[in-house]
Amino acid sequence: VLLFREKDPFAVINYSYQIEEILHKRKSKYNDIMVLKSPHFGKMLILDNVVQLTELDEYFYHEMLVHVPLHIHSSPTHIAIIGGGDGGALREALKHEAVEKVVLVEIDREVIEVSKSFLPTLSSGFGDPRVEIMTMDGADFIKNAGEELDVILVDSTDPVGFAKSLFTNQFFTDAFSALKPDGIFVAQTESLHFHRDFVCNVQHKLAQKFKHTDLYTISITTYAGNWWTFSIASKEYNPRKKPRKCKVPTKYYAEDVHINAFLPQSLKEKLRLL
Amino acid sequence: VLLFREKDPFAVINYSYQIEEILHKRKSKYNDIMVLKSPHFGKMLILDNVVQLTELDEYFYHEMLVHVPLHIHSSPTHIAIIGGGDGGALREALKHEAVEKVVLVEIDREVIEVSKSFLPTLSSGFGDPRVEIMTMDGADFIKNAGEELDVILVDSTDPVGFAKSLFTNQFFTDAFSALKPDGIFVAQTESLHFHRDFVCNVQHKLAQKFKHTDLYTISITTYAGNWWTFSIASKEYNPRKKPRKCKVPTKYYAEDVHINAFLPQSLKEKLRLL
Repeated sequence: VLLFREKDPFAVINYSYQIEEILHKRKSKYNDIMVLKSPHFGKMLILDNVVQLTELDEYFYHEMLVHVPLHIHSSPTHIAIIGGGDGGALREALKHEAVEKVVLVEIDREVIEVSKSFLPTLSSGFGDPRVEIMTMDGADFIKNAGEELDVILVDSTDPVGFAKSLFTNQFFTDAFSALKPDGIFVAQTESLHFHRDFVCNVQHKLAQKFKHTDLYTISITTYAGNWWTFSIASKEYNPRKKPRKCKVPTKYYAEDVHINAFLPQSLKEKLRLL
Repeated sequence: VLLFREKDPFAVINYSYQIEEILHKRKSKYNDIMVLKSPHFGKMLILDNVVQLTELDEYFYHEMLVHVPLHIHSSPTHIAIIGGGDGGALREALKHEAVEKVVLVEIDREVIEVSKSFLPTLSSGFGDPRVEIMTMDGADFIKNAGEELDVILVDSTDPVGFAKSLFTNQFFTDAFSALKPDGIFVAQTESLHFHRDFVCNVQHKLAQKFKHTDLYTISITTYAGNWWTFSIASKEYNPRKKPRKCKVPTKYYAEDVHINAFLPQSLKEKLRLL
């Protein structure tokens, strides 16, 4: 029996997984990439010793990252995904009829290649004619985008190393400028159990630019701290308004799940986010 | 640096914690008991290699176990806690003015002793005159209790070994009989990510006896599977009704947290709990 030990970049808990097989291993310019096979989780994508997704439960994260903003926006036609080289967020975004164009900006082309080879249930959207893939730094892309995007989805690795540039004031300013007047920004922003200061810091930065800033959460087993947050910022739509009726096929997301995921106001007060 | 490796009884993920010191270690008739000191979590209580609580975040679990039913019941005067030898649930129950008597039924007296010695913020309620401690099997206690309890709280270890008796049809039948006509039963019932079949099984068993059966959840980092469930069953009160106004001091629990914790109906449908 092989064992994979996850390196928590914040070093609070370390996780070990039984694995059956190392399906693939390579070193790209940006990441140590591995695909493992676990008896419980199915295939697992690992970057720099951190679990990015498992076949068993990736849909919790990807559905919530994508469908919450795409059901708040009344007509999401032009989407940018920053990161997300595994294709999971792309697959979910493409389910929406309104979506005409998705730009996926992934700094590490090799993550996309590995996903295409080993994770067909995630990478199924890469051949869709609505998709444009850009191999570049997400922060540079957003800086040079015109006011043309309806939704920006930041599906990044942990905010250490090269992903740091996606959580700066400059990036949030550029994201604001890249969005149309009713645009919505969402980023995965780590765990409320382990990274509370980080979450609050991002919320405060976003609140300086956007009309609405809010937080929704979900429990994810393979992400350290588990009580996982998505920070949402919106130029016009109130994120707490009733979402559009869900017409896309989902395993977890639904209208009541959407509404329920937003952090109760009493907790926002305790975290001084109000 | 010492390391503590948690043994997940379901063996899906194993967790390792940095620890500074083993503060205490003993073997009782029922448990291998340890108190560890962690730089992040503070003191940790470990039974049979499974983390039961940490000083840092125990209040999430204990507040939700106790305050949800005690805010649904209009006058909770007589409470039984099955297990809960650490005292955390007891501490929360005693905050309620309506509470006149709490019977804590812990099979392992040594857990109570260890908590009194090492976990003063948890064991603070043991000296309260409203408390009666019974050192016996919780299933035996409930079998012989008259129809006298307002609320039963099952604060048990994982349903392996001696705690198995707290999740049988017989136990749920006896619990029903031990409750007054408007009584409420709550049990911790493991994780929806890892132990979905177990959770559903308990829900179905409870639904055979009680007028209302429901499920509420919270994300807990040190419990394997993290998306932690509490199964609630009620003879009269609908658990989804608006809770009584919260007048007790809490760190996490609040009226909106209470309402939000109940599993969305769409997920209950997907789990075939409706």
